[in-house]
Amino acid sequence: MKQVKGLFINVFKTYQSGSHRFISSKKLVFHEFGEPVKVVNVVEEELPKVMSTEVVVKMLVAPVNPADINTIQGVYPIKPTLPAVPGFEGVGEVVEVGSDVSSLAVGDHVIPDTQHLGTWRNYGKFNHDVLMKVPKDIALTEISGITSNPCTAYRMLKDYNSLSPGDVVIQNGANSACGQNVIQIARHWGLKTINIVRNRDDIDKLKSYLKSLGADYVFTEEELRNISRDASIPKPKLALNCVGGNSATNLLRTLVSKGVMVTYGGMSREPVQIPTSAFIFKDITLRGHWMTRWQKENKESAERKSMMNELTEMMRTGKLAAPAHKFVTLKNFQEALMNTMSIQGKSGVKYYIDFRQ
Amino acid sequence: MKQVKGLFINVFKTYQSGSHRFISSKKLVFHEFGEPVKVVNVVEEELPKVMSTEVVVKMLVAPVNPADINTIQGVYPIKPTLPAVPGFEGVGEVVEVGSDVSSLAVGDHVIPDTQHLGTWRNYGKFNHDVLMKVPKDIALTEISGITSNPCTAYRMLKDYNSLSPGDVVIQNGANSACGQNVIQIARHWGLKTINIVRNRDDIDKLKSYLKSLGADYVFTEEELRNISRDASIPKPKLALNCVGGNSATNLLRTLVSKGVMVTYGGMSREPVQIPTSAFIFKDITLRGHWMTRWQKENKESAERKSMMNELTEMMRTGKLAAPAHKFVTLKNFQEALMNTMSIQGKSGVKYYIDFRQ
Repeated sequence: MKQVKGLFINVFKTYQSGSHRFISSKKLVFHEFGEPVKVVNVVEEELPKVMSTEVVVKMLVAPVNPADINTIQGVYPIKPTLPAVPGFEGVGEVVEVGSDVSSLAVGDHVIPDTQHLGTWRNYGKFNHDVLMKVPKDIALTEISGITSNPCTAYRMLKDYNSLSPGDVVIQNGANSACGQNVIQIARHWGLKTINIVRNRDDIDKLKSYLKSLGADYVFTEEELRNISRDASIPKPKLALNCVGGNSATNLLRTLVSKGVMVTYGGMSREPVQIPTSAFIFKDITLRGHWMTRWQKENKESAERKSMMNELTEMMRTGKLAAPAHKFVTLKNFQEALMNTMSIQGKSGVKYYIDFRQ
Repeated sequence: MKQVKGLFINVFKTYQSGSHRFISSKKLVFHEFGEPVKVVNVVEEELPKVMSTEVVVKMLVAPVNPADINTIQGVYPIKPTLPAVPGFEGVGEVVEVGSDVSSLAVGDHVIPDTQHLGTWRNYGKFNHDVLMKVPKDIALTEISGITSNPCTAYRMLKDYNSLSPGDVVIQNGANSACGQNVIQIARHWGLKTINIVRNRDDIDKLKSYLKSLGADYVFTEEELRNISRDASIPKPKLALNCVGGNSATNLLRTLVSKGVMVTYGGMSREPVQIPTSAFIFKDITLRGHWMTRWQKENKESAERKSMMNELTEMMRTGKLAAPAHKFVTLKNFQEALMNTMSIQGKSGVKYYIDFRQ
């Protein structure tokens, strides 16, 4: 990281010139798709004057998600026009508003309400309609990451099979950021969860942690094999799969007849393999979930407003917490890039870029 | 087949004794699950006197389906109490009715309206409520097999994705009995079909035959790979899979976003393999169809009555024909048993047991 150190003498500076306050900002940029630590660089820029429908946002906190890494690598279905600023998520504070903007005011907290805003920058100038105002009394780690993992967990539990309190959900990759949200939202709704994780040295510590979030059962992939033979463990109606391969097949075996499995990730990089008999005689349904598509299709829907209200209320009352995490400054962005993919599903932490330091 | 030849001197005989007509009948029976040609034998029996709610049916024609073979092998989810008479389907003529039966009369044609009646016999005595009256002006080959393949094709085209005239369906195993029904029903409803078959010596003859039934496109598995690159071939919204393995994966690749694949067979004995990205980014749904379950769940439904009316009308007007077939007598049942599984999906014919000879 030494090669970029010299760029960060002044993180940002603002100055007045006539009636307009000029803002100098640093942002991360990639000019080509490729290995994130190689293609992402820091650029300093002076923000152009705000137009009548625009606002200037000072970023506060932005999560680093696997989808951000995949986007920089060029392997994500959303390919921004290059050069691009990475970052799907983040929360910022409005510091300046154009003359025609009435929906937002200076001091408001906002998150992106569009597919690719580019949140990894100190300041951004955006049209007001690509931002969503959010409450200010919610921790920045929680609210900055609300649109991906908590929304994904919420929709997967709600949209794919009709579940009532007492019904059971099984998931693999249960210690992922999304898996932790599934546990907490399921508990809040009275659903039971069976959580599958990979074995590791500190497995008991991990099991205790997930149970402290509300997990009813936590098993390793090896222990999963015995679940269907144990009559004391209830049969799930819904399986959530972010692994693929054998892990997905084993989840499926535990499902009740007419059960549903939703795939939202493929950490093992192996395809989902299903015996034809499971489709025919057990009437299993396999679906997929991609939060980005849902958000796009439901931009103005009542379901989306209702979901955001419920999730923010859960965050406000401490029922939905961010996963274990670590802050880095914009200067140290490479640490976040390097660790976000390699630790996924392991005992790692989620990284956030903290622009407040 | 020599060992059973001696049993068939008199196929059936009836005689009067007082007010009751006694009926002597031959039936096929298996006392244990296993290889059909080994465990199925001929038994001669005298039919007990008809009770007040019963009817006696003289069987006319019964198809030999792969599900019958699997049932005898003990690998089908429906396991009849042993000893059992094989045969899920068939059409018969009512020859005697009990004193309390008003829904059926002597001379009516009937088919089974239950899961496992055991149709492979010259005469059967059944409670009236396990039989369904069918029109007499429809060819016996068509009406005797109506509840499995035509119903399966009908429901798969109707229930799993909303299709309108002009929409496209792709299927593998397209020359199977069910595949031929899919082609004919799809044509009747204005849907287009892309039909995948295995390559063979007389492939051009098979392509011509399927096109004569109404197939829009017929390709071999090898040619299937090029379909997605050929812009002149429309993208299907629905895929029907009775093969599994690579064939299923290749079908799936051709689907539009939000497409559905229904699995109703697994001829390759290989699981269905799906890349996780197809679920997530292409929003594919995978389902299964089992006609037996649907029939059971819909015994009294309006959808079932409507389907039976539409299918019998298609048969009456020549729009839905039985596949290429061969009759065997009850005496030669082993030929049908030996060839039904081995030829499935090849250029073979469907076997029917013909009790009229």
